[in-house]
Amino acid sequence: MKSYRKELIVNVPSRRGFLNITSQVEECLHESGIAEGFVLVNPMHITASVFINDDESGLHHDYDQWLEKLAPHEPISGYQHNRTGEDNADAHMKRQVMGREVVVAVTKGKLDFGTWEQIFYGEFDGMRKKRILVKIIGE
Amino acid sequence: MKSYRKELIVNVPSRRGFLNITSQVEECLHESGIAEGFVLVNPMHITASVFINDDESGLHHDYDQWLEKLAPHEPISGYQHNRTGEDNADAHMKRQVMGREVVVAVTKGKLDFGTWEQIFYGEFDGMRKKRILVKIIGE
Amino acid sequence: MKSYRKELIVNVPSRRGFLNITSQVEECLHESGIAEGFVLVNPMHITASVFINDDESGLHHDYDQWLEKLAPHEPISGYQHNRTGEDNADAHMKRQVMGREVVVAVTKGKLDFGTWEQIFYGEFDGMRKKRILVKIIGE
Repeated sequence: MKSYRKELIVNVPSRRGFLNITSQVEECLHESGIAEGFVLVNPMHITASVFINDDESGLHHDYDQWLEKLAPHEPISGYQHNRTGEDNADAHMKRQVMGREVVVAVTKGKLDFGTWEQIFYGEFDGMRKKRILVKIIGE
Repeated sequence: MKSYRKELIVNVPSRRGFLNITSQVEECLHESGIAEGFVLVNPMHITASVFINDDESGLHHDYDQWLEKLAPHEPISGYQHNRTGEDNADAHMKRQVMGREVVVAVTKGKLDFGTWEQIFYGEFDGMRKKRILVKIIGE
Repeated sequence: MKSYRKELIVNVPSRRGFLNITSQVEECLHESGIAEGFVLVNPMHITASVFINDDESGLHHDYDQWLEKLAPHEPISGYQHNRTGEDNADAHMKRQVMGREVVVAVTKGKLDFGTWEQIFYGEFDGMRKKRILVKIIGE
């Protein structure tokens, strides 16, 4: 069994945003030399998500509005977590809706994806450097 | 390390619906000859989920109503994504609540499940052919 | 390839609650002798979650309130599932928001975590014994 590890560094210049990281994960897979196995991709932070969906800007706008409705940023004082001096309790909620990690099959050296599947980093507490872990196991 | 791959084909005859695919995943596992490892099951589409829960029709009715409350199908024009000519923005939201994929442990050649765990395909934009990926790695 | 399996037993003395199980998963990893691979952690029950987030009591209070708003326990009769004699339909919803399982990278014999990542068991239908599966594959 082979294994591979890399950290991707991102810095979203706004509180919330979505980045398509598919090509960076593909580069990792290529570097790894692994042909059959699993790729795990997860943020190393707890106010962000890695998820798979469509690369369509209207949809990303919809996600943002929808998540803000399900777990509004304000009022800040509406969350006990924010009494610790944070203002990001909503980001911890949004991250749970969108999920932490994805596991993707590797087949013949490629991400085994359907037509529209793309990997995104979802930031809910940005304007700072964050790390994304890519770990691959297989042969 | 051994690996195995299969696509299951489904076609849900309504916009939304849930299919129990446990026995099909068990067949794949049997075919693979893998005794210890992980199974990954995911739709190859971005308006559907694979998830693990109870095979109880009342519960599935509740899920449907609840998801429709969290992310209503209508008004279609309430989502920017639908300006692309689609009417399925809500399906992209519902899929995130229910999750994309499941990873299941394989132990002694069987899905390592608790009493009530069953694998479901959740369709949120049906009436067309869809593919589900089953990938197994292990020994 | 090596594999390892263990069941952790928990019993949350209230209907809902969160337990930090990180150190128990670390013990499993140590016992496994696996240095590079993946850990899968999932409840063997369908009204509970395993998820990764922050060990901060205010946040856990916020999660509880938020989940209760998204999928209220009462009225019991508001869910068809509860006509089976159960009163836990809401727990099946809450579990989907928080997710079933986590997959964690193993690097150099350790859980490959960012600073604040901790593994939690989220109980939504407690006051009974439950099992959590830890399965590790790698080398």
